Amino acid sequence: MSVEKQMKQAKEAAIKLASASSETKNKALKNIIINLKKNKNKIFSANKKDVEAAKKFHLQESLIKRLVIDDVKFKEMVNELKDVIKLEDPVGKTLSVIELDKGLVLSQITCSIGVIGTIFESRPDALMQIASLCIKSGNAVVLKGGSEALNSNRALYETILKATNNVLPKGSIQLIETRQQVKQILKLNQYIDLLIPRGSNKFVKYIQENTKIPVLGHSDGICHVYVDEDADLKKAINVCFDSKCQYSAVCNAMETMLVHKKIADKFLPKMIKKFKQANVEIRADNKTKKIVKSAKSASEQDWKTEYNDLILSVKVVNDADDAINHINKYGSKHTDAIITEDDETASKFIEKVDSASIMRNASTRFADGFRYGKGAEVGISTAKIHSRGPVGLEGLVIYKYVLVGKGQVVSSYAGNSAKKFTHRRIK
Amino acid sequence: MSVEKQMKQAKEAAIKLASASSETKNKALKNIIINLKKNKNKIFSANKKDVEAAKKFHLQESLIKRLVIDDVKFKEMVNELKDVIKLEDPVGKTLSVIELDKGLVLSQITCSIGVIGTIFESRPDALMQIASLCIKSGNAVVLKGGSEALNSNRALYETILKATNNVLPKGSIQLIETRQQVKQILKLNQYIDLLIPRGSNKFVKYIQENTKIPVLGHSDGICHVYVDEDADLKKAINVCFDSKCQYSAVCNAMETMLVHKKIADKFLPKMIKKFKQANVEIRADNKTKKIVKSAKSASEQDWKTEYNDLILSVKVVNDADDAINHINKYGSKHTDAIITEDDETASKFIEKVDSASIMRNASTRFADGFRYGKGAEVGISTAKIHSRGPVGLEGLVIYKYVLVGKGQVVSSYAGNSAKKFTHRRIK
Repeated sequence: MSVEKQMKQAKEAAIKLASASSETKNKALKNIIINLKKNKNKIFSANKKDVEAAKKFHLQESLIKRLVIDDVKFKEMVNELKDVIKLEDPVGKTLSVIELDKGLVLSQITCSIGVIGTIFESRPDALMQIASLCIKSGNAVVLKGGSEALNSNRALYETILKATNNVLPKGSIQLIETRQQVKQILKLNQYIDLLIPRGSNKFVKYIQENTKIPVLGHSDGICHVYVDEDADLKKAINVCFDSKCQYSAVCNAMETMLVHKKIADKFLPKMIKKFKQANVEIRADNKTKKIVKSAKSASEQDWKTEYNDLILSVKVVNDADDAINHINKYGSKHTDAIITEDDETASKFIEKVDSASIMRNASTRFADGFRYGKGAEVGISTAKIHSRGPVGLEGLVIYKYVLVGKGQVVSSYAGNSAKKFTHRRIK
Repeated sequence: MSVEKQMKQAKEAAIKLASASSETKNKALKNIIINLKKNKNKIFSANKKDVEAAKKFHLQESLIKRLVIDDVKFKEMVNELKDVIKLEDPVGKTLSVIELDKGLVLSQITCSIGVIGTIFESRPDALMQIASLCIKSGNAVVLKGGSEALNSNRALYETILKATNNVLPKGSIQLIETRQQVKQILKLNQYIDLLIPRGSNKFVKYIQENTKIPVLGHSDGICHVYVDEDADLKKAINVCFDSKCQYSAVCNAMETMLVHKKIADKFLPKMIKKFKQANVEIRADNKTKKIVKSAKSASEQDWKTEYNDLILSVKVVNDADDAINHINKYGSKHTDAIITEDDETASKFIEKVDSASIMRNASTRFADGFRYGKGAEVGISTAKIHSRGPVGLEGLVIYKYVLVGKGQVVSSYAGNSAKKFTHRRIK
């Protein structure tokens, strides 16, 4: 089947899927668990092929680790499906009710978006997670995983397909496998309502720049921690260290540390010592270098760089405003933190920093769907509309207005003897 | 100043404006009212120039009518500003609060979006309305009105500028005047966060297809009314007539009427007679033509056409599903109505029709920000994300996550002795 036909089928399925009951959607998810267990050997041997190919092509050890489906990961996949079943159905919730006039009531009700195009990294368990979230929210989904996981993804997709065949509308879940197909779907804005790309900055940027379809995601994660003059330095050291070192390869890790000039002398030597012990390379501005003589020089480019590695840029700033300006200039609107005991400075930072997540005295690494209590994460968005920050099921729904009347017409509410609206909020 | 410099200035102003207090924003709006009254003569004489030019170039009578600022319209402008002052500040509202762990609390708080680029029709009062809504929501705004209203817009803009000069950050409100400048701003996605174009379908489509900036709006308004077999025919006649004739030149007017075959014989003759008396041209399918012999034939193109005029396409359908399929195929996701006394059919229609507003036994003409009780309308959106249907102030805000802790780090919640999150919903 051509990609265009697949997408057309998905669009037709989406209309039906949008009105599927919670029971139907949960039944589909339960069937997937049953089928997953049935197909375990098949999935493992498909995954083995991928892992062997990856080793043959000498892929990075960390990448191979993410690719492997072992017993632990398999169990996690099942548990994640169970969690999604337990989540509240995001569709059909009444957001607001307003009486326009007697017997004329307007409700705002959540509904599915339609067809979600997802493009994700080589972790095959990502396929299962994304598919389950789209099913739960009544959206048709197009799945494109990493090419390294081709066989695993195919086995997982077949598992899903068989499990949902008689439960969900035909065509609700689509798989595409090549870059050429990705290029094609970018043009199919008549069928696809939202794209969720995950992966490298370069890749997400490519998607954002080559489609008319709205894109939910983030290309960069240049996160800052600002250590204020009123910081508790012990907290500052712990939070900065965690933000950088707890897992440095991810989008919510700190890339730049900003330090108030009044506490730089006291704070920096201890902090940098701790970073050095963890093999973090420091790239610093001149003021920092006066205190930490061993540091390399940071260039203008460093302030704009997401290292995703054990490298940190460090700058001494004059005050909170200076820090805020740096963050709004060089940051990526992802996650930024302030360490301070002063409420006024904290409020200012929270108000003026234009980012999706702002932390006070807490690690940037908390910015994540699971930690935010969303149960599951579709992605992290740095967009300024729709959904921002870690996005859970709520990002996969929108709303309809439903107006129920008794034959009312607008002409009664116009002209000289116009009736007045009551506009009474009921919910 | 170059357009790029203007937009850069707007972006810088937006950061400051985002944290302006309700008092500051309302003070700016009050000053505008004062200055508007002061400048009344200036504004009227500028407007006179525009109206004279329009007459000289023989613009349509309806267009000239929209262009005129007379005493009535001036008073309306002042009243609209007063209404916006009274609206609740949409910024700084707490949407949700969740305790992640003891002393680690996540809040989701509404905030301004940033820089809103607005391009609107030749009604000069639109400039005032849009500017006031952006000020109230703490967004910087770029205003581009119709070229027919050039002098009026300039006079209104100067009024706003003088009134807000010492109250709002410099550069918060920008005016652009040429199509060339519009072309330029479409490329400035680093400064503009959201575009709201209003105007002809063709124009809005042009904007949507030529920018990476998210666009809120609608190009088409192909609205349907479906008269079900269980319709109360008196209601049906009133609602269909109002949907078409109360004001036919607007996006929420009915363009296609769908009629259940079982009631077509009874309903159509009366209905069409009423339409004919109002000079509505009927373009009908073959089944309709058997009943209403005088009707013209509808072509495939008619089902896809927004007439914005006293023309109506009419089709007899087999049942509600047939109507739903027609609407989802040919409609524009704007506003569609069902006339029925049957709850089950109504529910099905409401669930399956993929439109922003769905009416049961009420006119499509109710789909409008003022009638929906929003106080004011930014535009009507047929997008599937962010804001849908008539959009009020709520469409001009997004949210931030604010996490406040006491120095917590993620490493405490990872590994073998990981602490557990409480994830207790507070709000």
